Amino acid sequence: MGMSKERFQARSITRVSSSGQEICRDFLALEEPLEIQIAYGPEAARLWKTVAITMRTPGHDRELAAGFLVGEGLLRSLDQVESVHAGGPRFGEQGWQHRVRVVLRSGVTLDLDRLQRNFYTTSSCGVCGKTSMEALELISSAPLPAPSWHIDAATLCALPMRLRESQAVFDQTGGLHAAGLFTPEGEALLVREDVGRHNAVDKVVGAQFLAGKKSLAETLLVVSGRASFELMQKAVAAGIPMLVAVGAPSSLAVEVAEKFGATLVGFTKAKGFNLYTGRARVQLPSSPSVQPHEIPATIGAG
Amino acid sequence: MGMSKERFQARSITRVSSSGQEICRDFLALEEPLEIQIAYGPEAARLWKTVAITMRTPGHDRELAAGFLVGEGLLRSLDQVESVHAGGPRFGEQGWQHRVRVVLRSGVTLDLDRLQRNFYTTSSCGVCGKTSMEALELISSAPLPAPSWHIDAATLCALPMRLRESQAVFDQTGGLHAAGLFTPEGEALLVREDVGRHNAVDKVVGAQFLAGKKSLAETLLVVSGRASFELMQKAVAAGIPMLVAVGAPSSLAVEVAEKFGATLVGFTKAKGFNLYTGRARVQLPSSPSVQPHEIPATIGAG
Repeated sequence: MGMSKERFQARSITRVSSSGQEICRDFLALEEPLEIQIAYGPEAARLWKTVAITMRTPGHDRELAAGFLVGEGLLRSLDQVESVHAGGPRFGEQGWQHRVRVVLRSGVTLDLDRLQRNFYTTSSCGVCGKTSMEALELISSAPLPAPSWHIDAATLCALPMRLRESQAVFDQTGGLHAAGLFTPEGEALLVREDVGRHNAVDKVVGAQFLAGKKSLAETLLVVSGRASFELMQKAVAAGIPMLVAVGAPSSLAVEVAEKFGATLVGFTKAKGFNLYTGRARVQLPSSPSVQPHEIPATIGAG
Repeated sequence: MGMSKERFQARSITRVSSSGQEICRDFLALEEPLEIQIAYGPEAARLWKTVAITMRTPGHDRELAAGFLVGEGLLRSLDQVESVHAGGPRFGEQGWQHRVRVVLRSGVTLDLDRLQRNFYTTSSCGVCGKTSMEALELISSAPLPAPSWHIDAATLCALPMRLRESQAVFDQTGGLHAAGLFTPEGEALLVREDVGRHNAVDKVVGAQFLAGKKSLAETLLVVSGRASFELMQKAVAAGIPMLVAVGAPSSLAVEVAEKFGATLVGFTKAKGFNLYTGRARVQLPSSPSVQPHEIPATIGAG
């Protein structure tokens, strides 16, 4: 039974509309816990450590685990990894969890203390202990390369549509986020979906990592929702220099992009987009530019 | 300088559209870390413990902290609390964090071990260690009451519009989620916004808690986005028996709602909605019902 085959669930629901009500069949995006474990130490005395539990849509669990560890700055090279196994008890039987075990090669040690923190977060930002730009600097294994390529504005505008075209499940449930890795020419290399947008990104990054891809410096990441600190952080940690979001970015996402020299685009639609940082990676149509006003750093809302 | 006054940030961006490009002023939803601390023990030997760091939009930080602790099942009554202080170093000066300190009354002890867990999560689900229905049962202080009221379908359809009307910031940034507490008659009691949808819910729950409201059994929670496990869990933990989402629910959100006897509504629009569980709390228009088909529990997607 392949885990990747179960991404949604059929249910009987009551659909109410202006023409009345009906009991009908509906599809829900599947959401279940995944436990991510690292195994380390010599085989005869191997130790297991649970490093994360995430609520995710089943499928591509190995990639999710690998991508999560890359995003945390724990895994940097496929050479560190002996094997990655997906397994664990099935939902509803002995427990709720699926599990992925990442077995490190003999002699490899990770700075697991980085995860040993004294607090917890409800946040969707994934900081989970990484509470400052400084922590992110530690995670980012190398500075992003200076802009060496660009995408043209028309290609950029088409990316959300291409992401949707590549989504296998979205139209059936309306409940999945997508993340896709694209070339500067607008070609989709890989698209993944999940109830959690951070998981979709982890799946993309992990797939490239497990395939032995050494650098993502000539790719860009497209996400179906908003650009939070977390997603920008994951792109930076994976060495992806450009994030294109269909929705709005947060202030902190923009600050991270600026600090690390990444390009951040938001509100991307067929007819336009907002470019927040990293203009050199976007070839803009030639047109008159309006000069910026004097802008205060923050303004009152209350 | 009131913290609640800074919910967005002005920036200079490049806006690209079919009519060309311009450099203009844009507003971003502010996202900054908040540290939540609990103080316990006698005043002369008081101990502080950081229980969470969350990325949130500043404003209503005390309510956010209180609501988070209610959602975790740690706070159950205002009698447990001596005071709640917001403070801490400002962003960009000595550090990145704002901080809220919840001081417990003398003699009050919380089961902080519940938060002392050996793993972390990137999830937006807020489980952070609560990995099963069983854990949620522990958190839920009391079973939800049997349905004792209902909302009529037309009132329900108007809730997303009422939520948007009450949103102060959304139209300016496009980056904020909203959560609102409503009466069964459709009256908005309280609306809060945040870059994190879980934070918006915590702010609503915490505001009611700090105001001394003892029961939310006759209210319903409306959220601007999707209904994940996390949001359903927070509603159940706060004793709110109905969650109305503008977007899609996940499979686990529906299962939690079913198990705890809550009502869950998704895809709520002006002309209709999907009712997943807890039909007794919704007065449906009279119309012929179609009988459900035989529906398998899960179907393949790959």
